Amino acid sequence: MVESTLLPDLATQVVIPLCALVGIAFALVQWLLVSKVKVSTDKSHSNSKNGFAEPLIEEEDGVSEHAVVQKCAEIQAAISEGATSFLFTEYQYVGIFMVAFAILIFLFLGSVEGFSTEAKACTFDATKLCKPALASAIFSTIAFLLGAVTSLISGFLGMKIATYANARTTLEARKGVGKAFIVAFRSGAVMGFLLAASGLLVLYIAINLFKLYFGDDWEGLFEAITGYGLGGSSMALFGRVAGGIYTKAADVGADLVGKVERNIPEDDPRNPAVIADNVGDNVGDIAGMGSDLFGSYAESSCAALVVASISSFGINHEFTAMLYPLLVSSVGILVCLLTTLFATDFFEVKAVKEIEPALKKQLIISTALMTLGVALVSWIALPYSFTIFDFGSQKDVKSWQLFLCVCVGLWAGLIIGFVTEYYTSNAYSPVQDVADSCRTGAATNVIFGLALGYKSVIIPIFAIAISIFVSFSFAAMYGIAVAALGMLSTIATGLAIDAYGPISDNAGGIAEMAGMSHKVRERTDALDAAGNTTAAIGKGFAIGSAALVSLALFGAFVSRAAISNVDVLTPKVFIGLLVGAMLPYWFSAMTMKSVGSAALKMVEEVRRQFNTIPGIMEGTAKPDYATCVKISTDASIKEMIPPGALVMLTPLIVGTLFGVETLSGVLAGSLVSGVQIAISASNTGGAWDNAKKYIEAGVSDHARSLGPKGSDAHKAAVIGDTVGDPLKDTSGPSLNILIKLMAVESLVFAPFFAAHGGLLFKLF
Amino acid sequence: MVESTLLPDLATQVVIPLCALVGIAFALVQWLLVSKVKVSTDKSHSNSKNGFAEPLIEEEDGVSEHAVVQKCAEIQAAISEGATSFLFTEYQYVGIFMVAFAILIFLFLGSVEGFSTEAKACTFDATKLCKPALASAIFSTIAFLLGAVTSLISGFLGMKIATYANARTTLEARKGVGKAFIVAFRSGAVMGFLLAASGLLVLYIAINLFKLYFGDDWEGLFEAITGYGLGGSSMALFGRVAGGIYTKAADVGADLVGKVERNIPEDDPRNPAVIADNVGDNVGDIAGMGSDLFGSYAESSCAALVVASISSFGINHEFTAMLYPLLVSSVGILVCLLTTLFATDFFEVKAVKEIEPALKKQLIISTALMTLGVALVSWIALPYSFTIFDFGSQKDVKSWQLFLCVCVGLWAGLIIGFVTEYYTSNAYSPVQDVADSCRTGAATNVIFGLALGYKSVIIPIFAIAISIFVSFSFAAMYGIAVAALGMLSTIATGLAIDAYGPISDNAGGIAEMAGMSHKVRERTDALDAAGNTTAAIGKGFAIGSAALVSLALFGAFVSRAAISNVDVLTPKVFIGLLVGAMLPYWFSAMTMKSVGSAALKMVEEVRRQFNTIPGIMEGTAKPDYATCVKISTDASIKEMIPPGALVMLTPLIVGTLFGVETLSGVLAGSLVSGVQIAISASNTGGAWDNAKKYIEAGVSDHARSLGPKGSDAHKAAVIGDTVGDPLKDTSGPSLNILIKLMAVESLVFAPFFAAHGGLLFKLF
Repeated sequence: MVESTLLPDLATQVVIPLCALVGIAFALVQWLLVSKVKVSTDKSHSNSKNGFAEPLIEEEDGVSEHAVVQKCAEIQAAISEGATSFLFTEYQYVGIFMVAFAILIFLFLGSVEGFSTEAKACTFDATKLCKPALASAIFSTIAFLLGAVTSLISGFLGMKIATYANARTTLEARKGVGKAFIVAFRSGAVMGFLLAASGLLVLYIAINLFKLYFGDDWEGLFEAITGYGLGGSSMALFGRVAGGIYTKAADVGADLVGKVERNIPEDDPRNPAVIADNVGDNVGDIAGMGSDLFGSYAESSCAALVVASISSFGINHEFTAMLYPLLVSSVGILVCLLTTLFATDFFEVKAVKEIEPALKKQLIISTALMTLGVALVSWIALPYSFTIFDFGSQKDVKSWQLFLCVCVGLWAGLIIGFVTEYYTSNAYSPVQDVADSCRTGAATNVIFGLALGYKSVIIPIFAIAISIFVSFSFAAMYGIAVAALGMLSTIATGLAIDAYGPISDNAGGIAEMAGMSHKVRERTDALDAAGNTTAAIGKGFAIGSAALVSLALFGAFVSRAAISNVDVLTPKVFIGLLVGAMLPYWFSAMTMKSVGSAALKMVEEVRRQFNTIPGIMEGTAKPDYATCVKISTDASIKEMIPPGALVMLTPLIVGTLFGVETLSGVLAGSLVSGVQIAISASNTGGAWDNAKKYIEAGVSDHARSLGPKGSDAHKAAVIGDTVGDPLKDTSGPSLNILIKLMAVESLVFAPFFAAHGGLLFKLF
Repeated sequence: MVESTLLPDLATQVVIPLCALVGIAFALVQWLLVSKVKVSTDKSHSNSKNGFAEPLIEEEDGVSEHAVVQKCAEIQAAISEGATSFLFTEYQYVGIFMVAFAILIFLFLGSVEGFSTEAKACTFDATKLCKPALASAIFSTIAFLLGAVTSLISGFLGMKIATYANARTTLEARKGVGKAFIVAFRSGAVMGFLLAASGLLVLYIAINLFKLYFGDDWEGLFEAITGYGLGGSSMALFGRVAGGIYTKAADVGADLVGKVERNIPEDDPRNPAVIADNVGDNVGDIAGMGSDLFGSYAESSCAALVVASISSFGINHEFTAMLYPLLVSSVGILVCLLTTLFATDFFEVKAVKEIEPALKKQLIISTALMTLGVALVSWIALPYSFTIFDFGSQKDVKSWQLFLCVCVGLWAGLIIGFVTEYYTSNAYSPVQDVADSCRTGAATNVIFGLALGYKSVIIPIFAIAISIFVSFSFAAMYGIAVAALGMLSTIATGLAIDAYGPISDNAGGIAEMAGMSHKVRERTDALDAAGNTTAAIGKGFAIGSAALVSLALFGAFVSRAAISNVDVLTPKVFIGLLVGAMLPYWFSAMTMKSVGSAALKMVEEVRRQFNTIPGIMEGTAKPDYATCVKISTDASIKEMIPPGALVMLTPLIVGTLFGVETLSGVLAGSLVSGVQIAISASNTGGAWDNAKKYIEAGVSDHARSLGPKGSDAHKAAVIGDTVGDPLKDTSGPSLNILIKLMAVESLVFAPFFAAHGGLLFKLF
């Protein structure tokens, strides 16, 4: 007898879309609140000080209110325009790729049964008839396109929100740090909730629509749904790589000439690369990261669903239990909503030193609340006892075990977050040691920074290993998938915190460019410093969840390709493992070289402008921002193709020529090697950035002994920071996508590889 | 019926020791030739210009012959004394470790059968009786001590030869570059042949002595022999780590103050750290590398022997076929002997530009000749058809297949060597691009250098993967072991070339310190530049062979622990894989931080001396060399313990607590991840070093546009070089040992883990 769940199927059908809609509504409310800050000085408000009745804390000396707001609006428009135009250019290219790849999916999967339209025996239950392979091909292609488009829209919306918010944050900073914090954080929340909710909603709608065709063939249905994850992640890859190259080429180029050679401050409007640099923050950090986490979320849901479809949930057609992953995400949205109110409404940030604790509290509160939420969902949406597919056999699982699987992922995420903070925040000794090593020059700074990054890998890896062991032992690959979902269940809050960073960074840039007083700049700098640490935490989450997600996808792939074990002691698997472990290096070499070359071009252009445009250093002539924007755009579009091709083609080539065993080795190898490089690269970069900020801020005797700005130690710190830029913002975060994407692609193409793969070995 | 081999057993018993003795005799002859260069100006020779009748090409202007030779002798004595005293200090500490670990081996292995003295059923042939476990424990312990002592002696002898040769090379450089080259190369050959031959001889004698007790129990005999590999590699680990920290702390410290702050040349006698720096070259590069390659050689022989003992060779007691690995090495010695003559007698190096081709020719000639040698050995020492143990079953193998296994390793080594040369020699575009990136400062130099290192991993990994696939497919783990032996069969030539580098480096240092003319210095610099590239090639060999060796050991471990497959899809194995892939990062973090901290202390001391000793910059007062030597010694002894403990304890802890499956995962993970970091670290470091030399030498228009010494681009290049020091000479090469050592340790302790391992899982 099939045990039923407390939550009836009908309620499930209502709860999921409802939660998604609540999330979207909440995002819109936040947007409305942010939009109350006016960046235009239209007549009706001209006497009410920037739209609000509250007075500015201090007046800008000798700067007319109208001119400042006008200037901010102009800069915002320039950034927004640059970002929009870049994303549209990028989307043209990835659009072509999207269509080509969709055709490829259709052809590969369609060819499995020779484009036959006849129903076939199901893979896992040969007594039943399933939909034809051609249907899988068509629906996988549709799911792929859906995922891809949702990902692109997510990235684009994120960018729009961020560019909408940056000038508003700057203007609010004139009223105090608390006001500015709220605007930046609310804007982050708009993005976080919009992405989390729309991702859930689209997936939910797709499942219901596909169900109209597939009916009782859940195996085929959820196999086709995995295309959604592939679409999401492939767009994320291009977004991350192109955005990462864009932002770091501009950043490195601007810093090397402006800060190092010409000795002008960061974000100085005289620097020709300054607009490109600010555009980069939005297309790289915001749009790229939005797509990335959306991809992780889509993939972990798909991995869980595909395994569930061949477990007792799918076999017995228990709809509520089947949609457990989506229910967890739904509750996650509600939990994050409540958590957000703690930052914006229940408490108020009044001083600079309260910013970082306020953000950290967000993580702790959301994790604690989510634990309760998961307990509730596990209680009402799961039968007490059920079975989960475990590489050929079915494993008995209890609902409380699944609860623990989700929780172990959720809490491992928190641990990774705090370890990341410890290694990248300048409040603790690791970064201070790195700063101290600047005393003896850039070389020791680089050595200490690299060593810090390597060391910071240890605890996160143990946390991930323990999560894997616990969830794997309880519920095989399904356990891993829900652990990943657990880590991502507070994604709305995570994204809000993440997006907050680049928004504050941009706000500081706008303050500088608009010529606002140094007090405003100090406040935005304080917001930004907190954002640096939270950005590192966000990256930690992204990497940790990517590791779990790709393992879950790997497991689903192995199940789907009907491999019952992946034995390291066979040459096919071992060489896959070795070559797979090499891929992250190859990929990093490409992306870092790309940033380096693009930065060299940028440096030459910026130098040229400083040398040939008279009056540029005096501020009397305007630099040619557009050329710098064009250099970044062209370089990133051109350079995103080789690393993108490496990631997208590897599973296809390996699977087709060498077969599923070697491909399994490649996936396992790239996973265990890539996660280490990703963590160490992003922490090293974060630490160098904050070591530099530590010297600049000079809040302790030790810090002051290294400073001030322009001292030898500070110059050494700037070199470290510049080296860290491509590590932490280009190659590091792209590696998450590499490991996830190769796994999800293998999963989607698994039927093809299982049927026609391993050509090379078949020939010899 | 057992097919017999063409070579009778008696001949085998004669050929192996004979070849070893020929190798030793050849080494002594080379030593004799080197010793003809006199560094003392005793009366009987005082009128014959430095012991030889040939005139010096040019007389030193205004420098008395007697004073120069006297000065060289003094410096040589100081370096030799410093190196000897350091090694003795190191050996005191590792001596304690050696004894403690020997006791541990005895206790662990003895406890397998409760210290019973009764004969037991054999593991792989239960119908026969084997020697008691206690005997294995005792003989493993003896073999461990033998390996450890041989390794220490190898390192010590290498260092003695190098310090004996350096001043002689300097003095010969006065007569021309060809003369100096011959002295340096001959000295390298002394070390190469002495190590290769004595390693072979000791192993051969040990096998014959052990056979007196074990008799027909070859399984037990060769299991006990593996202790030899463990002893060799554990000493190599401490040698590499301590030596690496010593040399780089001194080097970085000397450069940061001397070259960067005080603007005095490298090896200037006014620099207080200069003696420590030169001592470091001998204890790090020479003694460390000698122990390392000796360890690889011992381990690959042991891995092959242990697998052979449970294959048809062992089962049928075919002595000649059983000793095939040793016969390959014996022929290797003869081949290398012939190859050496090509550099020293058949051709003569007359100009600077002939040095690098002469060294490269050594590699090609030895590989080509060795191919013939392997063919001969495979023909006469193997039956045409035999079986090899393949994880539980026996696999049919033909003698020509084994020939191909050895060759694929041999040739893969050559490919790795040439790829390494391409990425680290400044004759090709990769290093020139890195040099070019110095134009925009140290940050881009570091970014490009890291990217180069990552990229340089690709082809070597494919070469290793193909070797593994071919040799694995032909002859399972035995194939891998003999492929590793193939790569190491030309070890004598490899070591000669390797040792040549640091000897030339030291010779340059002595020329500078003795105040010789710049012409002499130019010649030694040319010798040194060629040595830099060959050192990188040597490291490539060491890493490639380490990868194969550790896979072979891993296979032997798995066979010995009676695991028939290592399934990545079990949580126990997967978490092992993940954590194993993290270990090289942990290890690198420790060693790099150690170098950084020790260098900081050195910098402070050198600064203190420059500031407090009056007349030091004018050369009127002598700096306090001894304190700097002491700082390097203390730091390296203290800092070698934590990374050493990490490597030595991990297999013991994992095996005892988590069992053989998790340990298998750890070994596979650390292997596939470690090999990438090792290759990229040593190539990045080599490339930075040569990018700096490229700018300094200024041989092309491009190079001159970046220079001269002291230009901004050159300063940026110096920073890259300094960052690369710990990467290429401390953490990179130590990683080889990490992956090998964990594997051989697991193999030695396999009977214990199989019997009592996995306590944690047994408890829960």
